[in-house]
Amino acid sequence: MDYHDLIQSLKEPGENKIILLVSDGIGGLPLQPGGMTELEAAKTPNLDALAKIGVQGLSTPILPGITPGSGPGHLGLFGYDPLKFIIGRGALEAAGIGFAMQENDVAIRCNFCTTDASGNISDRRAGRIPSDESAAVVQKLKSIKIPGTEIFVEPVKEHRFVVVFRGDGLGDAVADTDPQRTGVPVLEPIPHEGCAASKKTADIAKEFHRQAVAILKNEPKANNHTMRGFAKKPHMPGYEALYGLKAACIAVYPMYKGLASFAGMELVGSPATLEEEIDVLEKEWANYDFFFVHWKYTDSRGEDGDFEAKVKMVEELDKVMPRVKKLIDRTKGNTLVVTGDHSTPAKMASHSFHPVPTLIVSDLARTDEQEHYGEKFAVHGGLGQFQAQYLMSLALAHAGRLGKFGA
Amino acid sequence: MDYHDLIQSLKEPGENKIILLVSDGIGGLPLQPGGMTELEAAKTPNLDALAKIGVQGLSTPILPGITPGSGPGHLGLFGYDPLKFIIGRGALEAAGIGFAMQENDVAIRCNFCTTDASGNISDRRAGRIPSDESAAVVQKLKSIKIPGTEIFVEPVKEHRFVVVFRGDGLGDAVADTDPQRTGVPVLEPIPHEGCAASKKTADIAKEFHRQAVAILKNEPKANNHTMRGFAKKPHMPGYEALYGLKAACIAVYPMYKGLASFAGMELVGSPATLEEEIDVLEKEWANYDFFFVHWKYTDSRGEDGDFEAKVKMVEELDKVMPRVKKLIDRTKGNTLVVTGDHSTPAKMASHSFHPVPTLIVSDLARTDEQEHYGEKFAVHGGLGQFQAQYLMSLALAHAGRLGKFGA
Repeated sequence: MDYHDLIQSLKEPGENKIILLVSDGIGGLPLQPGGMTELEAAKTPNLDALAKIGVQGLSTPILPGITPGSGPGHLGLFGYDPLKFIIGRGALEAAGIGFAMQENDVAIRCNFCTTDASGNISDRRAGRIPSDESAAVVQKLKSIKIPGTEIFVEPVKEHRFVVVFRGDGLGDAVADTDPQRTGVPVLEPIPHEGCAASKKTADIAKEFHRQAVAILKNEPKANNHTMRGFAKKPHMPGYEALYGLKAACIAVYPMYKGLASFAGMELVGSPATLEEEIDVLEKEWANYDFFFVHWKYTDSRGEDGDFEAKVKMVEELDKVMPRVKKLIDRTKGNTLVVTGDHSTPAKMASHSFHPVPTLIVSDLARTDEQEHYGEKFAVHGGLGQFQAQYLMSLALAHAGRLGKFGA
Repeated sequence: MDYHDLIQSLKEPGENKIILLVSDGIGGLPLQPGGMTELEAAKTPNLDALAKIGVQGLSTPILPGITPGSGPGHLGLFGYDPLKFIIGRGALEAAGIGFAMQENDVAIRCNFCTTDASGNISDRRAGRIPSDESAAVVQKLKSIKIPGTEIFVEPVKEHRFVVVFRGDGLGDAVADTDPQRTGVPVLEPIPHEGCAASKKTADIAKEFHRQAVAILKNEPKANNHTMRGFAKKPHMPGYEALYGLKAACIAVYPMYKGLASFAGMELVGSPATLEEEIDVLEKEWANYDFFFVHWKYTDSRGEDGDFEAKVKMVEELDKVMPRVKKLIDRTKGNTLVVTGDHSTPAKMASHSFHPVPTLIVSDLARTDEQEHYGEKFAVHGGLGQFQAQYLMSLALAHAGRLGKFGA
């Protein structure tokens, strides 16, 4: 029996709420062996108070030693096997700008490039044209029309933009048109042999490119473009079907909203700060069973390699915890999960493979002896070390929302 | 996505080195409940110093409760699922005597046996004929010739020897000819029905046996032989393809050299002692990315049931650790793994299922609070309990040699 089939067969309705509070990249490393991690160094009286009444452990995002990107990292937290549910690059880019993909869409990551008089690529990134210039050129491409296909063209950043084709019977097995080198022309979009649906997409892509080149011909830098990562929306059972949860996503950054929407969560509010995210959480409390709340800056400061700044971001998270605690206390049986999608040690200035301190607070938590939230406490926590993809069944169980398997 | 595909897609080149130091059967048991294991009882100041700056855990060789032989134990450490990559007994026996199998070889474990005047087996092991006598008889079998097939006959120990057929299109689905009892003749080698390649091997085996019986007819004890475990070389992706590592094996015993060669490691040096193994490690340091160093005698003394002698073998290992540490310190980013392929508690005088204390030393180790290397410390270590087959991805990650999965 497949894990998802199991969960679906056991899910039970409830009146209670689950909060999945993801502090992006919260796990860290000491700068020196034997020192403290960012989370251990931070003053977190409120998280520590929760650790005392909760149960802690370390979640492995993918498998031991594997560093996840944001996509696989969040899919794991949402309960999807990240090695099975792969989000195509085009779909991830569309998610990244908050584009709500539909079932009959194919999304493509595009790069403006520069071609010379003979049609060969001289600059694969069009001189990294600034975002505002690039957005103006993207605006011109919105005039492209292809009968039978709805077309969306959206700027991303610098030379990057997203194209989405919406139409029936479109496949996504189409090869990239970026030759990955200069001195040669942009490639044709070649469909996977024998795949009529992808042939249809490739034909549309070819016509799009033909019209685009005509529109772009007088641009000084962005006079051509490549297409990569043709991708349909990932096929994932949604939170309602899978867990019986009406789920809300409260996030600032489009990428996480996009990932949550793939899992069938509704995007609520338009918060710009953590305080505003908690405002939305309070306001929407009655309307959903499940809330994914995303705090970005622990990851950002980790990526910057700034240990002290990351410590401060942890402390900012700690400051809102009393408001979160108040919500959890409002009725019996609510469950709070505090975790990260991966570690981002300032020491490495990048995502890492290290497991993530994870805390569950619930009436049903078998509390351990840990009095602080952090890596070295989580090592000794009651949840042990577990794969992140099982966090949702742990959360549901702690919320009393999973029935018994077998008689 | 399969684990090996994942690792292959993420592997990154590096200038740094990884040492996998395997102290065979290092895990143990206290003689009395609550007492110390061999490793805990040993004085290991150097390993303890490494534990302070590293991270520890317990690796489960196969699955909880499963005791591995040397083959599966090492395959797990090398990153191959030991339940998926099964080495046929003939190939394992060939590896055990250091025979370098090729793709078109079939190896067979043979036993000399004694048959009576009517051709029935009277002794399945030819009176456990001493190794030197047996080797002399094996020498005679080297005269066997079969057109189109190259034949190797090599002594193992007592009544055991290995035969290898080398030729194109040979299969290994051939049944054993040992009837597993006396009073009946040696069986015919029967190929799996419908398998032409195995039929070809069976025909060669039959002809080999015919010539052998003619040669052996006047031997007092070894006047016949059986054949078991027909096996081709296992199909395993090598270390270079899988991990991007140029790998060396430094071992004394042929069996471990054979296992390492199946994983594509090069066999370097001909050390006879642990000190000599470290000599080779130092000498070859510049020439490889990865070194598998095998220390045999913790297992041997465990198998002997000699607790004190095993303690001494652990202490011998500890004595060379400063030399190993010096190599690791030579440049930044090197990674040392100290582990075993399984436990061999003197109390049991055999391999056991108990998980194996495993230590990783690296700049990227999230150090734990353990100040000694040993079972009761590993229980509380930061690596938790994990399957040995993920040790290689942990080692690569700690060496910064694995990229990010997904964006």
